[in-house]
Amino acid sequence: MKSKVLLSFVAAVCLSLAVTAQDTPDARVQRVLADSRFGAAMAAIDRDHDRLVSEIIRLTEIPAPSFMEDKRGAAYLDMLRAHKLADVERDEIGNVMGIRRGVNPAGGPLVAIVAHLDTVFPEGTDVTVKRSGTRLTAPGVGDNTRSLAVLLALLRAMDETKIQTASDILFVGNVGEEGLGDLRGTKYLFQKGKYKDRIKQFIAVDGTGEGTSIANGGVGSKRYRVTFKGPGGHSYGAFGLVNPAFAMGAAMQKLSGIQVPQTPKTTFNVGVVGGGTSVNSIPFETWMEVDMRSESPVELEKLETAFLMLVRQAADDENKARSTKEGKLAADIKLVGDRPSGQTARTSPLVQMAVASARAVGSTPSLVFSSTDANVPISMGIPAIRLGSGGTGDRAHALEEWIDVEKTSSLKGIRALLATLLAVAEIR
Amino acid sequence: MKSKVLLSFVAAVCLSLAVTAQDTPDARVQRVLADSRFGAAMAAIDRDHDRLVSEIIRLTEIPAPSFMEDKRGAAYLDMLRAHKLADVERDEIGNVMGIRRGVNPAGGPLVAIVAHLDTVFPEGTDVTVKRSGTRLTAPGVGDNTRSLAVLLALLRAMDETKIQTASDILFVGNVGEEGLGDLRGTKYLFQKGKYKDRIKQFIAVDGTGEGTSIANGGVGSKRYRVTFKGPGGHSYGAFGLVNPAFAMGAAMQKLSGIQVPQTPKTTFNVGVVGGGTSVNSIPFETWMEVDMRSESPVELEKLETAFLMLVRQAADDENKARSTKEGKLAADIKLVGDRPSGQTARTSPLVQMAVASARAVGSTPSLVFSSTDANVPISMGIPAIRLGSGGTGDRAHALEEWIDVEKTSSLKGIRALLATLLAVAEIR
Repeated sequence: MKSKVLLSFVAAVCLSLAVTAQDTPDARVQRVLADSRFGAAMAAIDRDHDRLVSEIIRLTEIPAPSFMEDKRGAAYLDMLRAHKLADVERDEIGNVMGIRRGVNPAGGPLVAIVAHLDTVFPEGTDVTVKRSGTRLTAPGVGDNTRSLAVLLALLRAMDETKIQTASDILFVGNVGEEGLGDLRGTKYLFQKGKYKDRIKQFIAVDGTGEGTSIANGGVGSKRYRVTFKGPGGHSYGAFGLVNPAFAMGAAMQKLSGIQVPQTPKTTFNVGVVGGGTSVNSIPFETWMEVDMRSESPVELEKLETAFLMLVRQAADDENKARSTKEGKLAADIKLVGDRPSGQTARTSPLVQMAVASARAVGSTPSLVFSSTDANVPISMGIPAIRLGSGGTGDRAHALEEWIDVEKTSSLKGIRALLATLLAVAEIR
Repeated sequence: MKSKVLLSFVAAVCLSLAVTAQDTPDARVQRVLADSRFGAAMAAIDRDHDRLVSEIIRLTEIPAPSFMEDKRGAAYLDMLRAHKLADVERDEIGNVMGIRRGVNPAGGPLVAIVAHLDTVFPEGTDVTVKRSGTRLTAPGVGDNTRSLAVLLALLRAMDETKIQTASDILFVGNVGEEGLGDLRGTKYLFQKGKYKDRIKQFIAVDGTGEGTSIANGGVGSKRYRVTFKGPGGHSYGAFGLVNPAFAMGAAMQKLSGIQVPQTPKTTFNVGVVGGGTSVNSIPFETWMEVDMRSESPVELEKLETAFLMLVRQAADDENKARSTKEGKLAADIKLVGDRPSGQTARTSPLVQMAVASARAVGSTPSLVFSSTDANVPISMGIPAIRLGSGGTGDRAHALEEWIDVEKTSSLKGIRALLATLLAVAEIR
């Protein structure tokens, strides 16, 4: 009897724990980690790691500047088709995706896990991967090609171990995350895509990392293309006329001197410049593309206001410094990017599951702000985070961008990612 | 007897005048003007003026950026072939040309008359000619397409009226006058071309004008392409690293403030800028092309020295203002153009004949400095000038470049040009 009572008590406790377990993010993650299929899935990814690396290389070497993701998108579409997904397709804007069906009734809420296809590097950039040991160097290799390949590795491991989830999971390789892409792929998903009303949780896999950095905050950004326009003319014959390059130089010089706070982190950049027809012609136009970001909407607005003022000032100064007899110089200011900011509450189950998963693999996660596809759902109040795809790396957006695919570190981040995904989608 | 003595006296005076006439530039021009074939040639150009205009339009609408003169060169070669020229050909570098044989023995000194094929406008510029009355507006229409067509008109008129000259005349449509072309067409003519040792007088027909501006001075110029290079990186993640755009902005801003003398005329220009990969990347390089000119070699050198110093200063300042932990910023300074300066003496027969011709058509010529194909022979001590091709025009190197082909003004400049050419080559 005694033992019976004890057993009953234990059973009752277990039951209550189980119920509680289902309700807390921590417990959900623990259930995933305790599931033998999770261990088997990670073992599969470990065995299959060379394939992951070769797919990183293969995808990196298909150039995919923003707005020119077609070729890489087509390759990724084929790769998605080789896995057990339903409705693999390319939408109107170029996102490629497929659904991994869960056990819940069809058509319910789903979890989207996305990696962007595009890179910041223009057409013609040499994207050949240089390999030295476990280090791969190439433009775009870490931002964001590794993530694309990791999504495939997750799919294969889940298939092989027959892992099921409650929710459907939407796997996406999306277009237009970078630069002037201005999140167009993800905006389309939420504004026009066929799953727009079903995506209730969103994980952007972007960059490397072992789970130490979880972005639950979307850094707001404002991007401008400013074109300075003047009458132009002969460099010698018309010397003395207003010169758009000089106005732009003054504007860049003034911008470079603006003081921004370190906290909340606030940044500015002149990213691309162009204009002019020949060395011996006063340009009729020159232009620059400027990126400004802040964790704080207030600081972003302050920076934006100062920037717009200095642009106008630079144009005015040039009109005073040189002759306007053939026409005045004007600054044409165009907003080309406006990324919403916001935050998924740190207390939300999604963030908590990511934190618990990172801790479970031995990492110490920080909650940070970043500017990724997650900004879109965050701004709509839909829980969203950005996670890394494992491994280490640095110099994103530089020609010498690199990642290290050393297996221990690579698997550590993947383990945190898979645990989060299966906790969020509820392993069954 | 008395009358016989008188007649002998008159004859002697006439003879002596004739001998003198052959020796002074003024008299040579007078002989041309008095020749009935000259009047007939100008009448032919007058009658044929519509064809001149249509050839200006036709050639203007064939884009010919420096280094991409092929298509226009081919068209001009065909047009030269339609006239009575010997040895019509295209040389290795792309100059198209033919010889109009004189009565002197073959192989002697010759007069070259050249018009450059290239324009400052890059590929893709709309070069459609907009016509409003006698005004033609299009990039490159006056600099230097009108001159190309005028050379053909001169040829036709000389052929029709059977004008002969003592010297051979080499008619050339040359490449690479503008910008980074750096006079490569004319340099080739004098350094490697088959006529390099025979060209003893040189007339560059460049721009419009009724003979009021005769350039006997070559403005020296120095042209630089400066590339600011840094490590690049993510606009947000790597904010704080040195930024090539900021160094370039500072350099442009400093250059814009340099004080240069009006006399001797000295000028500077930032003509083309470029660089960067995406709005959200710190550029790994940005570049600018800078043109500096002066009538005075001393002033040019002063300006060049100041420029080189401010470029280095801008790079140094950027390395102090921001972080160099991923690498320092450096300025790569490349000389891309070096146009010799110099002067054909105002007392030289070539200049004097041009002055006399301009006066003969009722213009008041000024001797000026300019930077044209004539700089090359001038720097070699070979008499050379730049003349206009008739008519009026303005806004060279600007998109709204225009010429007026109103006949009176158009013919006035052509008359001065033809008189000069026939005086120099000696009408026979």
